[in-house]
Amino acid sequence: MRNLTLLTDFYELTMMYGYFCQGKTDEIATFDLFFRPFDESNFCIAAGLEQAIEYIENIHFSADDIDYLRSTKAFDEQFLNYLKDFKFTGDVRAVPEGTVVFPYEPLLIVTAPICQAQLVEAALLNIVNHQTLIATKARRVCHAAEPSSVLEFGLRRAQAPDAAIYGARAAVIGGCSSTSNVLCAQMFGLPPKGTHAHSWVMSFPTELDAFIAYADTYPDNCLLLVDTYDTLGSGVPNAIKTFDYLKAKGYAPLGIRLDSGDLAYLSKQARKMLDDAGHSDCKIFASSDIDEYVLESLKQQGARIDIYGVGTRLITSNNTPSLGGVYKLSNVRSAGKDHPKMKISDNPIKMTNPGEKTVYRLFGRDTNKAIADLIALKGEVIDDSKSLTITHPLERWKSKEVYNFYAKELYVDVIKGGKRVLPQKTVYQLQQDCKESLDGFWEEYKRLTNPHEYKVDLSDKLYELKDKIIREERKTVAK
Amino acid sequence: MRNLTLLTDFYELTMMYGYFCQGKTDEIATFDLFFRPFDESNFCIAAGLEQAIEYIENIHFSADDIDYLRSTKAFDEQFLNYLKDFKFTGDVRAVPEGTVVFPYEPLLIVTAPICQAQLVEAALLNIVNHQTLIATKARRVCHAAEPSSVLEFGLRRAQAPDAAIYGARAAVIGGCSSTSNVLCAQMFGLPPKGTHAHSWVMSFPTELDAFIAYADTYPDNCLLLVDTYDTLGSGVPNAIKTFDYLKAKGYAPLGIRLDSGDLAYLSKQARKMLDDAGHSDCKIFASSDIDEYVLESLKQQGARIDIYGVGTRLITSNNTPSLGGVYKLSNVRSAGKDHPKMKISDNPIKMTNPGEKTVYRLFGRDTNKAIADLIALKGEVIDDSKSLTITHPLERWKSKEVYNFYAKELYVDVIKGGKRVLPQKTVYQLQQDCKESLDGFWEEYKRLTNPHEYKVDLSDKLYELKDKIIREERKTVAK
Repeated sequence: MRNLTLLTDFYELTMMYGYFCQGKTDEIATFDLFFRPFDESNFCIAAGLEQAIEYIENIHFSADDIDYLRSTKAFDEQFLNYLKDFKFTGDVRAVPEGTVVFPYEPLLIVTAPICQAQLVEAALLNIVNHQTLIATKARRVCHAAEPSSVLEFGLRRAQAPDAAIYGARAAVIGGCSSTSNVLCAQMFGLPPKGTHAHSWVMSFPTELDAFIAYADTYPDNCLLLVDTYDTLGSGVPNAIKTFDYLKAKGYAPLGIRLDSGDLAYLSKQARKMLDDAGHSDCKIFASSDIDEYVLESLKQQGARIDIYGVGTRLITSNNTPSLGGVYKLSNVRSAGKDHPKMKISDNPIKMTNPGEKTVYRLFGRDTNKAIADLIALKGEVIDDSKSLTITHPLERWKSKEVYNFYAKELYVDVIKGGKRVLPQKTVYQLQQDCKESLDGFWEEYKRLTNPHEYKVDLSDKLYELKDKIIREERKTVAK
Repeated sequence: MRNLTLLTDFYELTMMYGYFCQGKTDEIATFDLFFRPFDESNFCIAAGLEQAIEYIENIHFSADDIDYLRSTKAFDEQFLNYLKDFKFTGDVRAVPEGTVVFPYEPLLIVTAPICQAQLVEAALLNIVNHQTLIATKARRVCHAAEPSSVLEFGLRRAQAPDAAIYGARAAVIGGCSSTSNVLCAQMFGLPPKGTHAHSWVMSFPTELDAFIAYADTYPDNCLLLVDTYDTLGSGVPNAIKTFDYLKAKGYAPLGIRLDSGDLAYLSKQARKMLDDAGHSDCKIFASSDIDEYVLESLKQQGARIDIYGVGTRLITSNNTPSLGGVYKLSNVRSAGKDHPKMKISDNPIKMTNPGEKTVYRLFGRDTNKAIADLIALKGEVIDDSKSLTITHPLERWKSKEVYNFYAKELYVDVIKGGKRVLPQKTVYQLQQDCKESLDGFWEEYKRLTNPHEYKVDLSDKLYELKDKIIREERKTVAK
């Protein structure tokens, strides 16, 4: 396993050194990893937890790492010695992968000695921001493609190898049927997908030679790329000749792939040509700069496409290539006493929620659909035997009475005392979990354009704590 | 070293199997890796070659890889056996890292037995697309920041660990002074940079306590983040108290960091407060969603910022998060005979250039500034003792007479017969090479908005070859 212990911002290490010098290493800090309102989508699909766990479990400073840190001349020998046996001994709670999450709801809550909790900030953000971003984008793309399925094809445009590997993983959690990326498929037990490229066709004297050669190699699994020279003029006619040849030998050809041009027009024409030639069973695959908006347009135009290959725009989350998750201190436990913490700002969306927290999702008993989420202090119990009034976190005059509901806590224990307690799931199990989490929401929240606003409120106790801290801080600053 | 041999699209393997079954493994293919016109910039900074070389040199199918491929049931035992001793034995020529490159100019040219040349497509594109994208973005950001310097801060928002590590490397090639990413700094011999976060301040009873504690830890290197509570109301005044304390002890404080709010206004106010308090030597660092456009605006407003920390928008190339490089077959040598290849399309920008090629950059003898680039067939010699007429590759009525020039070939030999021949350079040497390559261009080509169009023409021989292939193909399709 790769040692990612130094995958951190230098300031995490200088702060650790500062905490060490100040004798604060026994203080227990709680940090919340959450995202603020996100341009691309009203909610996200949590992903990346598995790699976050692997990273945390593997934290250790090798002798080389310590020598390297010595060379920066920013630390003394006592601290470097302290790093020798450094490992993560704290707790992590998290929203499971595949779950629908909203802005301000912590995806991950880390409670650990302050140096440990501080060190992991940058890598946890890196891992969870990325996979949550791509799972969220994949959910949108797959939603727009329904009932057609979507294959992830983005390796060549992903931002370096990990983005391809873990991005494809996240894409499958978010709904893609599989990936073309063989290494990802090998690592996560997925069936790798793909056929041939233009170079295959170009390496033969003619397109038909290339198609027949491919059919001979994969008679059971023959999918032909038809746009190397002229899609309707040569590609589809040569594919039909090849399919005739395969059928005569008793095989069932798979279909064709369109990779350029006007996909709506070409797919309708190709469908007709295939049908007229007696190849109605052959499927049409399409790829070429596809995203959820292109898919909606193709659907509207009546395109005849059975399976989409989606690359660049999914694997980079093209319109919004970062999630912007943050990792904020919410509590310090010092000498057995809790000190809830929050970041104060003139900008209310930059204020954080203090204290150790949890989130309840409230579902209608009659519909099993989500009504609202409630961010509460850890340990608060929601009495779902009677009705509950929930209030907007900023616009306090907006409140709503919730009744006939049940409350479900979103978090699971992931790491306790440094040891993993969450069982591992396969990527397809996480995909199923994602489907179930999405099924808990009305369509109005899931549509891609102008979705209905979902309520995420604060419990009264949390609201009062936050209000008290802000008032006290303002008093201090005024002095 | 990580085994990235299976970091490939499945179709590369199915094509390899097809070439194997067709007895084509001795054919020598040449592929060009190039990008088409790119929205974000009129030119790119080549980067990623070092990691491309590492990847190619390390290609091998482990026993686990072969078992895995067997499990896909897509290959026979003869082919799996062939993979056991598979390695890259071909040649690679490339534009060195840090060089200014234009659309259609191959960044990398691979000539190898067809299975080898095919396998490496996806990983080479992944590596070179990513780093070239980020080096290009960094060049733009650093250009806009001049004379202020730019630190790379993007680890937490990068698309997975590799994007952070290799993205920071590419950012330094493109002009950033260093990075906050410790692992990247360790791997590439860069000084890691950073001070403290809001959590440091929040973990102390008061902001002043936190600042004094940080000053005691790093008296020589004290940079304070001033926006945790109220930048001008408490942050800057507390920083000034801390700097007074440090100066009284004989230390020279470094400065402050602004991380939110109106950076133009706050930097001017903070500058005045620091100067009035006798801390004119203290620098002002700023971060917060900065890119080249924000930088131009800050400059216009007279912001007083000495050093910028640039994160999300650089490390993801926020506006255009993929380069879109492609890898296209240009020649097949079979039984000692060359067959130049090209992709034909109704869309001229999707047509490729056939044959083994090179690129010359023509410089004025009097100015040492670039005049135009000429894509030519490999082996063509440019006689720069007399004038030369160059012609637009599509709009053939546009031509230009070039005189008093010298021609410089852009490529270097990178791998010959599977062995690396290019000496390794440090990242700062590549940054220097980048600076020199940029110095070869007039400012008009380098400005960020509406730059002057730079001429990239085809040699007459290459143009004639391309024209002949298109005409022949059209005749074949017409039949």
